[in-house]
Amino acid sequence: MRTYLDCYPCFLRQALDAARRAGASEEQQRSVIRETLTALENLRGDETPPEIAHRVHGVVRGNVAADDPYKEAKTEGTRRARALYPRLKALVEESDDPLDTAIRVSIAGNIMDLGVADRHDDLWDVVERVLDQEFAIDDRAVLRSALEDADHVLFIGDNAGETVCDRVLVETLPVPVTYAVKGGPVLNDATMEDAVAAGLDRCATLITSGSDVPGTILAMCSTEFRRHYEAAPLIICKGHGNYESLSQEGPRVFCLLQVKCPIIGRDIGASTGSIVVRQGAS
Amino acid sequence: MRTYLDCYPCFLRQALDAARRAGASEEQQRSVIRETLTALENLRGDETPPEIAHRVHGVVRGNVAADDPYKEAKTEGTRRARALYPRLKALVEESDDPLDTAIRVSIAGNIMDLGVADRHDDLWDVVERVLDQEFAIDDRAVLRSALEDADHVLFIGDNAGETVCDRVLVETLPVPVTYAVKGGPVLNDATMEDAVAAGLDRCATLITSGSDVPGTILAMCSTEFRRHYEAAPLIICKGHGNYESLSQEGPRVFCLLQVKCPIIGRDIGASTGSIVVRQGAS
Repeated sequence: MRTYLDCYPCFLRQALDAARRAGASEEQQRSVIRETLTALENLRGDETPPEIAHRVHGVVRGNVAADDPYKEAKTEGTRRARALYPRLKALVEESDDPLDTAIRVSIAGNIMDLGVADRHDDLWDVVERVLDQEFAIDDRAVLRSALEDADHVLFIGDNAGETVCDRVLVETLPVPVTYAVKGGPVLNDATMEDAVAAGLDRCATLITSGSDVPGTILAMCSTEFRRHYEAAPLIICKGHGNYESLSQEGPRVFCLLQVKCPIIGRDIGASTGSIVVRQGAS
Repeated sequence: MRTYLDCYPCFLRQALDAARRAGASEEQQRSVIRETLTALENLRGDETPPEIAHRVHGVVRGNVAADDPYKEAKTEGTRRARALYPRLKALVEESDDPLDTAIRVSIAGNIMDLGVADRHDDLWDVVERVLDQEFAIDDRAVLRSALEDADHVLFIGDNAGETVCDRVLVETLPVPVTYAVKGGPVLNDATMEDAVAAGLDRCATLITSGSDVPGTILAMCSTEFRRHYEAAPLIICKGHGNYESLSQEGPRVFCLLQVKCPIIGRDIGASTGSIVVRQGAS
């Protein structure tokens, strides 16, 4: 997805949010804002949102000595989601259509996104909503059919906490899963540590993208990740950042997400609050 | 009020909104964003929000040939509010405390502010809410007492449409009123034309600030406005922009507003959605 001009205010807001989470002083916050303005001014104009977010969060790290401003939020998000894990599993086990319920649980988890403004949703409330919600874009049938033909799945995760909901889906999928997380901390995106805290090491082979871009820019990923990516017969990816970077990467890719801002919504053709399973375009 | 760093994303958003209302092409919108980034980068750091907004809207005018991007929105806002005028008058006439009701009607009108994000409020719904709402900051008693001693009032308006609600208050005040509007278009702030469309010429002496700053920066106002300002025994001013520029201008000034963003809320000490009558500090 290209970067819309509407995203610019959001990058500034994200920079300030990350700086504060990192404990930045007023002076450091001011430097972060100023350098972010400069970074935005110097864009070529063809960067995707994850590439720009990557630079913005680099500005924060350059100004504030904090490896991972969202660490506490991620730990807390995983803790809250894990507390719900038995109830999420029960939903799937008691369902007439376990795979469908697990897909919905995984998409519900996508609400745990600290890159978008003003989200204070209760995960269980969102799960209950998504269980009964109609899909705004619905390629579930194609996904089911692709799952029958695939011998394994590459699952590209998004946020910490959401990982617990993804675990429910991974455990329901009929084939082995390789689950990819970020190569380093950015926003509240899950890293290896977060995936292990969610228990994903018990049901999937864990790898990293080799990159701390909040999305999947293949050229910035490790050779090892790209090898997994090329070899995968089916790729499930989660959330805004992966949609922004992989939605045009062909029919092997399925984007599972909640639409959490009007800009993504306009691009995807669905309103904020929608749930989406979308096969990638070529 | 000083400008908080949280205001920066909002200025970018405002610039883009104004550019689009002015019919800017994609290329013009991109220039507006880029020049706004430069303008924000070059701030000294002691400017108030109305001064910065003034520059930002100047950037829009410099890129898009439109005298008044909000003209249509202002006309429509005034039309909607005028349709409610008989009902607003009836509320005051049937009230046990007409002055109090008229103050609430005027404050309810302050919702018609296109400078803040995502406002799609129905004016009558807001009037009904504000009629029963407790004041978060309540200097109404001091204002009433000041009105008894004053031989006239300078009333500094804010937005088009809100002007109709102000008219209800002006018509209820026991003393003659001079009503000030902006000297030129900026955001949906009322100009002379908008005040006349609201019928304020029938109940007040109309003047302008001589400036198109979306607030009241005295140094940027006309000599004539400043003469009115200095001579006024009592000043009622409306909305965010006037609060941001006049809240420290002493006890003659009373700010009447709704808190419509968390940043103003933090400064004033009240949450978003609050209603406020606040006497100026020295």
